[in-house]
Amino acid sequence: MSNPKSNESGQQKSQGGGQAPQTAITPTRADNYSEWYQQVIKAADLAETSAVRGCMVIKPWGYAIWENMQAVLDKMFKDTGHRNAYFPLFIPLSFFQKEAEHVEGFAKECAVVTHHRLAPGPDGKLMPVGELEEPLIVRPTSETIIGASFAKWVQSYRDLPLLINQWANVVRWEMRTRLFLRTAEFLWQEGHTAHATAEEAQVETMKMLDVYADFAENFMACPVIKGKKTDGERFPGAVDTYCIEAMMQDRKALQAGTSHFLGQNFAKGSDIKFLDQSGTLQYAWTTSWGVSTRLIGSLIMTHSDDDGLVCPPRLAPAHVVILPVLHKPESAAAVLEYCKKLAVELRGMAYCGRPVVVELDDRDIRGGDKMWSWVKKGVPVRIEVGPRDMEQDSVFMARRDKPHKEKTSVKRAEFIATLTTILDDIQAGLFAKAKAHREENTRKIDSMKELTDFFTPKKAPKDNEQPEIHGGFAMARFSMDVAAEAKLKDDLGVTVRCIPLEGSDDPGPCVITGKPATKRVVFAKAY
Amino acid sequence: MSNPKSNESGQQKSQGGGQAPQTAITPTRADNYSEWYQQVIKAADLAETSAVRGCMVIKPWGYAIWENMQAVLDKMFKDTGHRNAYFPLFIPLSFFQKEAEHVEGFAKECAVVTHHRLAPGPDGKLMPVGELEEPLIVRPTSETIIGASFAKWVQSYRDLPLLINQWANVVRWEMRTRLFLRTAEFLWQEGHTAHATAEEAQVETMKMLDVYADFAENFMACPVIKGKKTDGERFPGAVDTYCIEAMMQDRKALQAGTSHFLGQNFAKGSDIKFLDQSGTLQYAWTTSWGVSTRLIGSLIMTHSDDDGLVCPPRLAPAHVVILPVLHKPESAAAVLEYCKKLAVELRGMAYCGRPVVVELDDRDIRGGDKMWSWVKKGVPVRIEVGPRDMEQDSVFMARRDKPHKEKTSVKRAEFIATLTTILDDIQAGLFAKAKAHREENTRKIDSMKELTDFFTPKKAPKDNEQPEIHGGFAMARFSMDVAAEAKLKDDLGVTVRCIPLEGSDDPGPCVITGKPATKRVVFAKAY
Repeated sequence: MSNPKSNESGQQKSQGGGQAPQTAITPTRADNYSEWYQQVIKAADLAETSAVRGCMVIKPWGYAIWENMQAVLDKMFKDTGHRNAYFPLFIPLSFFQKEAEHVEGFAKECAVVTHHRLAPGPDGKLMPVGELEEPLIVRPTSETIIGASFAKWVQSYRDLPLLINQWANVVRWEMRTRLFLRTAEFLWQEGHTAHATAEEAQVETMKMLDVYADFAENFMACPVIKGKKTDGERFPGAVDTYCIEAMMQDRKALQAGTSHFLGQNFAKGSDIKFLDQSGTLQYAWTTSWGVSTRLIGSLIMTHSDDDGLVCPPRLAPAHVVILPVLHKPESAAAVLEYCKKLAVELRGMAYCGRPVVVELDDRDIRGGDKMWSWVKKGVPVRIEVGPRDMEQDSVFMARRDKPHKEKTSVKRAEFIATLTTILDDIQAGLFAKAKAHREENTRKIDSMKELTDFFTPKKAPKDNEQPEIHGGFAMARFSMDVAAEAKLKDDLGVTVRCIPLEGSDDPGPCVITGKPATKRVVFAKAY
Repeated sequence: MSNPKSNESGQQKSQGGGQAPQTAITPTRADNYSEWYQQVIKAADLAETSAVRGCMVIKPWGYAIWENMQAVLDKMFKDTGHRNAYFPLFIPLSFFQKEAEHVEGFAKECAVVTHHRLAPGPDGKLMPVGELEEPLIVRPTSETIIGASFAKWVQSYRDLPLLINQWANVVRWEMRTRLFLRTAEFLWQEGHTAHATAEEAQVETMKMLDVYADFAENFMACPVIKGKKTDGERFPGAVDTYCIEAMMQDRKALQAGTSHFLGQNFAKGSDIKFLDQSGTLQYAWTTSWGVSTRLIGSLIMTHSDDDGLVCPPRLAPAHVVILPVLHKPESAAAVLEYCKKLAVELRGMAYCGRPVVVELDDRDIRGGDKMWSWVKKGVPVRIEVGPRDMEQDSVFMARRDKPHKEKTSVKRAEFIATLTTILDDIQAGLFAKAKAHREENTRKIDSMKELTDFFTPKKAPKDNEQPEIHGGFAMARFSMDVAAEAKLKDDLGVTVRCIPLEGSDDPGPCVITGKPATKRVVFAKAY
């Protein structure tokens, strides 16, 4: 359906036919949302699939977004008293089994190391030899291996709280993968903490959920609902799982971060004990919490448009791209010099605690192609400088959050003076737009028929036709019946995303079972 | 021989007997260098072994050193035009075999993933199931998997040079491991670049060697010799391997970083081709270069003493520790307040591009234990503040590079004004001391007898006795004879560390074979 090659030189006709506006990404969101997502990643040069099943290559532009996310989150973790450490990639099978629900939750998707050498086999080809006494699991998450260290580190109440974070790669052998959203290997951070009381561990769990919500809303410009997972969606081995849920442009939900109160389950499995102030030996209370490169998928799907990536300024790999107009030989050198000086001046400025990042594109390619390549990469502010602009000491500015033809001539000094305000304005605008989208597509629903209609396309898609966009967040009462939730998933592909922490109290009959319910929850289809 | 518990409360008698000075680390360097190294790591809380064979846990204090190393190196890489990206953890066996020497070099120490699920076996216990069609190697280095991406990314000379770096974990199934120096899993960065000509790739290889030398000398305060490896010590698959070699306090050499000119070997294996300006299809020329958490081992062994870690200020997890003297109840609150204000003021200052990091230790433990815990952790500057110091608006300062009893009373304002100068002085002093040590233990050697004597202990160690320290760097002529080098390794445990890039030309007879040689090389025992 799509022809990736056709994107190379920028603007293309959408597939809608004669009257549709031209777009840089084919297909458009309306034509085929899922394929549009892949094409945005390709056009912005963020990542690609690799020869290793389900593992992605994160390309420099995509990795730069991750580095910016890491820098902000790492500071937030340190400001809340956490310290980074590093634990083994491999988990002995016996460790992994210390928490029964946990091993059951991950056993079906584990990469298992069984040998430690290669040697020529009978046919002369290399094969694995040196079988390990005990197989090693490539960590899908590190509760059990970190628990083994915590058991050594924690002896007395004086050693608590123990507040640790790890930046690492993890592997979950997913069968259906999609770049950033679901890959066999992904990058993440996992916080692991131990506390003397249940209350302290619960406070920590909620504190880190708040950190994630703060990051999502104020840096990713993604509005999120903070909530608790139902029993069916809990992390394997946790007592309670909390999450932040965001709505994508196709109205599906995406879980952007989770924070787990683990009770004493893992402390008992790993033997994390301490002497309390009265001299009694007790099990510690633990938490874990994580966000991953999945956030990049969320960022893409929240803001991008039919011209490619739209990146919130606070996480953008570059804030400004300067495009010198160099086609007149007599002025080219002077224009380039003018642009270089401007770049140096901008790079001396700061935006949100990091230096302003400027790309200066002096490649010898067609101006249109050059401009479109940066539109597709989502750089917040583009400026073009030609001989006449230079003479007038002005720049021709365009914003990624406005139509690409909307350009303004601004005096150089004014541009410099207002740049950070413009970036803040773009950041705020993206958040407001995403929030309005969520509100428009959130509905209170009180009957099963209405719920079914909400999540059912009006007409079945024909061949070559994409299903129409429908649904969103249905706020409906739920009696927390696990079987009813499972049936809903089978029937409609809809799950309870979370029980919102705020404003969800509203007693009445459950939308599915009719039994008494106390809260409205978020029902949605999800990534 | 050593009793780790005995270190807990600081200063201990060395094992030398009655007259020896007391030290915080048992055994001392002179008593047992190798065990001293382990005890410094334990006392400074840097790392520990894990339940997974050969894999270490990097504890927060050790990881903070790594984070500081990463920040400096990452900036150096970006300033030289490199961008970060991320490639798969797993390498299909078939990829790994694309370069014949390469696979031979790593086949004996590979972690191999063969299955992707766990399920109960006949005995009810979990076992690996879901055998993979092709085994996956956990990357020991990424030339072949990154080469597969480079082959896609490089089409024309316009795509070159391609300058990529990756921060990652790698696994080499070493049989004899030692914390930081040699572990089955370690953290590193690996630069991978592709160029249009051999010359450009060679320039890149040397440029990154210079970056490593700059980092080692100016941040780690470790003097290094830049040189080229002999054929016997080349990276498997490389044309030329360059390295930086440092001398540890036991006079052994440690390879602290390598930079490889790979020629077209890996480009041919991975099919990295480009159309040059004349329209001819050519193989690219590639390089790779890396440093790892091994650097932390080098840092420890270069500077630390019998009281524990000595950390160069530019990489120290904390620059200053403030120790309030709180044992008098009537002044405790005021002293603590005074110290907190001082900490805030110091944290507002910068040293070498990062904020000054201050620890304020108000734990309710014995003053001596408290002081010794920070000596052992290697914090460059300690200050004690008691009621009298506070009254005089002064602090009691000690430097980690001076004897622990050498303390000076300094006015608060003067301390603040001179702190960065003091840190620079410590940094410079550590480098000068390490350089003097290397020079004292480097000798020009011109005969095999002298070489043998230089590397042979004068007397054999008796039971419970450590071998005396001997040897160092022997600068001797070598004819580059691979067999002679192998024999020397068998006979004396000595290898050619490198052929120095500077000052090594000195024609004459080879110290081993007597054949004509053109250069003096560095012979040494090595980690």
